[in-house]
Amino acid sequence: MAISPLAPAAFPDLPVIEGVTFAAAQAGVKYKNRTDVMLAVLAAGSTVAGVFTRSATRSAPVLDCQSKLGAGDGPAAILVNSGNSNAFTGKAGTTSVAAICDSVAVATGIDAARVFTASTGVIGEPLPHDRIVAKIEELTAAQSATAMNDAARAIMTTDTFPKGATQTVEIDGKPVKIAGIAKGSGMIAPDMATMLVYIFTDAKIAYRPLQDMLGRLTDRTFNNITVDSDTSTSDSLMLAATGTSGVDVTGQQAFEDALHAVMLDLSHQVVRDGEGATKFVTINVTGAASDADARRVAMATANSPLVKTAVAGEDPNWGRIVMAVGKSGAQADRDRLTIRLGDLVLARDGWRAPEYSEEKCAAYMKNPDIDINIDLGLGDGASTVWTCDLTHAYITINADYRS
Amino acid sequence: MAISPLAPAAFPDLPVIEGVTFAAAQAGVKYKNRTDVMLAVLAAGSTVAGVFTRSATRSAPVLDCQSKLGAGDGPAAILVNSGNSNAFTGKAGTTSVAAICDSVAVATGIDAARVFTASTGVIGEPLPHDRIVAKIEELTAAQSATAMNDAARAIMTTDTFPKGATQTVEIDGKPVKIAGIAKGSGMIAPDMATMLVYIFTDAKIAYRPLQDMLGRLTDRTFNNITVDSDTSTSDSLMLAATGTSGVDVTGQQAFEDALHAVMLDLSHQVVRDGEGATKFVTINVTGAASDADARRVAMATANSPLVKTAVAGEDPNWGRIVMAVGKSGAQADRDRLTIRLGDLVLARDGWRAPEYSEEKCAAYMKNPDIDINIDLGLGDGASTVWTCDLTHAYITINADYRS
Repeated sequence: MAISPLAPAAFPDLPVIEGVTFAAAQAGVKYKNRTDVMLAVLAAGSTVAGVFTRSATRSAPVLDCQSKLGAGDGPAAILVNSGNSNAFTGKAGTTSVAAICDSVAVATGIDAARVFTASTGVIGEPLPHDRIVAKIEELTAAQSATAMNDAARAIMTTDTFPKGATQTVEIDGKPVKIAGIAKGSGMIAPDMATMLVYIFTDAKIAYRPLQDMLGRLTDRTFNNITVDSDTSTSDSLMLAATGTSGVDVTGQQAFEDALHAVMLDLSHQVVRDGEGATKFVTINVTGAASDADARRVAMATANSPLVKTAVAGEDPNWGRIVMAVGKSGAQADRDRLTIRLGDLVLARDGWRAPEYSEEKCAAYMKNPDIDINIDLGLGDGASTVWTCDLTHAYITINADYRS
Repeated sequence: MAISPLAPAAFPDLPVIEGVTFAAAQAGVKYKNRTDVMLAVLAAGSTVAGVFTRSATRSAPVLDCQSKLGAGDGPAAILVNSGNSNAFTGKAGTTSVAAICDSVAVATGIDAARVFTASTGVIGEPLPHDRIVAKIEELTAAQSATAMNDAARAIMTTDTFPKGATQTVEIDGKPVKIAGIAKGSGMIAPDMATMLVYIFTDAKIAYRPLQDMLGRLTDRTFNNITVDSDTSTSDSLMLAATGTSGVDVTGQQAFEDALHAVMLDLSHQVVRDGEGATKFVTINVTGAASDADARRVAMATANSPLVKTAVAGEDPNWGRIVMAVGKSGAQADRDRLTIRLGDLVLARDGWRAPEYSEEKCAAYMKNPDIDINIDLGLGDGASTVWTCDLTHAYITINADYRS
């Protein structure tokens, strides 16, 4: 698979986050000749927060992580495999998770109740957890503070590039570092969290404020992206704060802003690696009766196959945007609606704007990044959603590939 | 565009419905060398019912029809054009509707308050109504009781075949006839009605019971089909009862069953002409906590791009069905779920069924008609939804064609 044309120029230089180490290995769960399992080990005193898919058929690792959050303050570990999601695998799924957690506990000396796992890949096939268990000693021995980029590669499935992001923020004169990795390119319409995302910081903060901050920021980042309106059974986003900077960030807006920047960056990278994507689309909705209505319009537009194919065809077919606004279920008034492509006004006052230029709009659609701006003219509700186009390559990937 | 591989073998022989006549003409609204406008004239005493899109950006003709339903019992007329939907055309849209209705009134002597119109095609371009008005005398003069098939062709847009269906039911020893036509192949996720559908019967029945019956049956037919999850701004379904059989069908279950059969047939033909469709997919959901939950699961499955592309690829990728159940928002329990392809059990008791055979399931997926049967094992709620697959041809049609 060729690298997405929307990929960032390079993987960022991720800083060392004191208190966390990484290693990746080839367990052969499904893929050959590549790493497919990663282990991160967190020092004692680390706080671990997480948000997860709300799917009613969520995977065994997700259920296990949810039961473990918020308890204990000893060292912790995160083990992730790609190639098999361990979802809809019945009691065998639970057995696999327990076998992996117990094995990590034995190898690292970490309480199994502080071992978190995730699995991503095909749904409904028993996870061959013995292959993973066989690599845990190797993963434990190879732990390195500088191997976060290896971890980013090991969790990829249909991703065409590894995803990383980082920010450093100064608080009370001291630097606090944040670095994260993510995977995801299809089955992307997160509901509460998205895909697999792991973010680490040396900030000092207790579980409850960290979990609350994560929830707030997820609603402005990962919960507002969509590739194909399909929600994964495995979506997991975990955030670990090691506290090793010695800086207490509780209530620090500068830290929340920096974390927001990392999450936004990673969520955009997931969209930029959307299966078959050739355009990165930002949908800004303003003037709605409420924020919820604005999000409804933005998501209806982002998930419309007709809007997405028009973008793929570089066609400024704004009638389809009108259609999407209409079907969204949000309060809307045809005569107050304004639709712009970037700064170019398409529609206003209930019909095509007098200054509409097919030529200028068609030229705009050739950009790799497209902004669709919809103002409903009703109130102060606003929302931004990010998505990609729907292309032949999406069909090829998903009609031929069992993911 | 090649005719859909799922098209019926032939257009049915539609009977004459006494009290209604038809004609079609070439107005050149957008298409060249084909008919694009049809006029149906209904005798005095006809009852006219209708259901329409609930889109917040619905078209001028839809708004006009909604305001006219249920009043008067004189003769009536229905004029439909293809090539331009007269949607999001501001005040010009209302002017166009009035010009057409007034012109029909002058030519036919029918009260303009009993003239119903519909327009289908591109959104947001002013309707060149003069071209239609110029053809109304010709349409009036050419009225024929046997021209319903011509009307079916004149209302087509991206349709690859005209759609007709008929039933005759005997009530009190007398035959009552029903015949209808439809168009539609993309932007199909009706919300209250669908596309353009016109059904005629010589039954005798008042407006209120006819309208109620139409609403009930729409919820079991057109409201349960989806091609691409996108809802048109123009969806209109009108049902006219001329009363010329002399048979009062009020409260007659046999008539309602026959009307249901016509509506089901037409709704399935719309799906069989879904843009790019190569598979007709029936999704039966049973065992849900409620009928609404069952429909939620069926629609989530039907609209999932990952399920639709798996069907296109003839891949029995049931993990994607599990995903769709999970994301639907309906109450579901992984361990009570049973998923079958036709009679072949895929998943049961929370994991892959022991008797699952990849070979048999792959062979089943080669059929043009696919049944996906989902039992949630929770209650008595049930729903059936019909859809088609998502193929390269859908992308080609919608990335290149401004519809």
